[in-house]
Parts: sequence; structure tokens; C-alpha cells
Amino acid sequence: MIIIGIDPGTTRIGFGVIESTQNRFTVLDYGIISTSGKDKSLDYKLISEGLSKLISAHKPERAGVEKLFFSNNQKTAMSVSEARGVIILTFANHGIPIMEATPQQVKQAVSAYGSAGKAQVERMVRMILKIKDPITPDDAADALAIAICCANTNMY
Amino acid sequence: MIIIGIDPGTTRIGFGVIESTQNRFTVLDYGIISTSGKDKSLDYKLISEGLSKLISAHKPERAGVEKLFFSNNQKTAMSVSEARGVIILTFANHGIPIMEATPQQVKQAVSAYGSAGKAQVERMVRMILKIKDPITPDDAADALAIAICCANTNMY
Repeated sequence: MIIIGIDPGTTRIGFGVIESTQNRFTVLDYGIISTSGKDKSLDYKLISEGLSKLISAHKPERAGVEKLFFSNNQKTAMSVSEARGVIILTFANHGIPIMEATPQQVKQAVSAYGSAGKAQVERMVRMILKIKDPITPDDAADALAIAICCANTNMY
Repeated sequence: MIIIGIDPGTTRIGFGVIESTQNRFTVLDYGIISTSGKDKSLDYKLISEGLSKLISAHKPERAGVEKLFFSNNQKTAMSVSEARGVIILTFANHGIPIMEATPQQVKQAVSAYGSAGKAQVERMVRMILKIKDPITPDDAADALAIAICCANTNMY
């Protein structure tokens, strides 16, 4: 089964695509979708079109989208939530079921405890997926961790 | 010029469509788009499809979308923001420029001061648009007020 993980953000949306076969994972693709951060109408089209291209290329059967942590910065929380709406609609339009996971659930899925730092998550993701080179930026490593979390979870 | 106003929400999205000709306003349509409030993937498709139908029917040249007030309930703020992302993307996909207005700006546009209550906004909207019957629900009256605010504002 092919799974795409998404780490939502305002100017950088992390993505990671993996294949899960009998509890073994293979990495297919990872990176970020960038926006201008200036024009919402343009940026939401960039996110939706970028995601649609990834869906056409990899044909994922399910998607994991990270839930937002309650934030002290409500303005950021609202901007990231808007991007999440765009992402969830795009998957819905392609008929791809989504799973939402909290940052804690994602960290637990790769590191056995929920308070791992970004560097530890990146190291565990590389170990699980047998990726030699460092994964940059953090958003892409997080997105791969979300995909692993989604693969390990029974959605139905 | 035909203008559509949108009052975003989680289960009810208010809409109002007006025509503005030499500072005179005519109402064309108003109401709500309803969602299940249970399944995000389904609901965001319902919002996007409902909006697309209104765009096809009325061919608005610009759209006003209410900005979110900072809320004590961050969970609600994040849900409404997700719906706003869906709404803004849908307008962007149809090439319709959007204007965002705060609740205070919307109230000022119809009542000359920014702290008007819902009942007063509804009365002023009916007076401006010459609507005899009460406008229900509130979301639809708010959406018409947003359209009026957008018509009164020079976007560029």
C-alpha cells in the first residue's frame, strides 16, 4: 500500500511518500511544496496543484495529515488550519481517505515515546526507511514520520 | 458588478449574492451551505461543490470572506479556518479575487459603527437591499452584509 504523509505549514508543506509491504517500508519520494506566503489565493492553488501532481505520480491509497497542536500564536494556528483545509479538500477530491494524527502520535510511531525532538525523529525515519543522507528540511522528515504513523494505524 | 459574500462556519456556511450598480444594491440570492459536521472529507467537498454551483449560477466578479475573530475556543477557530481554506481555494480555482473583512469592518459597512448586534445587522441589510421578510438564519444575513462591505471597498 502506498501512503502519503503531509506536514502542513504556511509557506512550506512537507510531504513524504512510502510503500508499506508486509510491515516493511520503502521510501518513494519526499520534499516540500513551497508557497509565496504573500497571496493566499495563489498559495492555496500552489498547494492544491502540487499535491495533485504528487497524487498523480504516486497514486497513494491513503493519506496522513498532521493535526495542529494548540498554539499560543493563534494567527499562525489559523493560517496553518486554512492550509489543512486546502490539503484535506484536495485529497477528498481525489477520493483518498485521510487519517489525522497528533504530533505526539507521530513521534510515538517512530521513536516509541511522544516527546522526541526533531533531530531524533529525523534519525529514526532514516533508520526505518534506510535513507543514508540527512533528510532536509525538517518538514519532509516529519511528513515521512506521519506516513509511517499512518501505515501503522488501522484506519477503519 | 456581482459580488458574493461568505460567512464561514463549521456546519453552516452563509452566502449572499448582490449586484452593485452605481452604488445601488440589488439582492440576487442568499442562504446557507450545510455540512454533516461529522466527516471532514465529505464536508469540504460539500462546501466546495456548493460554492462552485453558486459561482456557475451567478458568475460573481469578486468575493468577500469574513476573517475570523480571535477566539477563546481554539478548536472552533481551527475548524472554521479549515473551512476558510476550502472557500478561498474554491474561489481561486474559479479565478475570483477575494477580499477578507473583519467582523468589525462588516458591521461598520452596514450600521456605521463596529459593535452592532446580529439583529441590527439583519435589519440594516434588509433596509439596504429592500428585503421585506426576515432573513434567516443569521449566517445568511451576515453573508449579505459581507457582500455589501466588499462592494463598498476598493480592493485594488
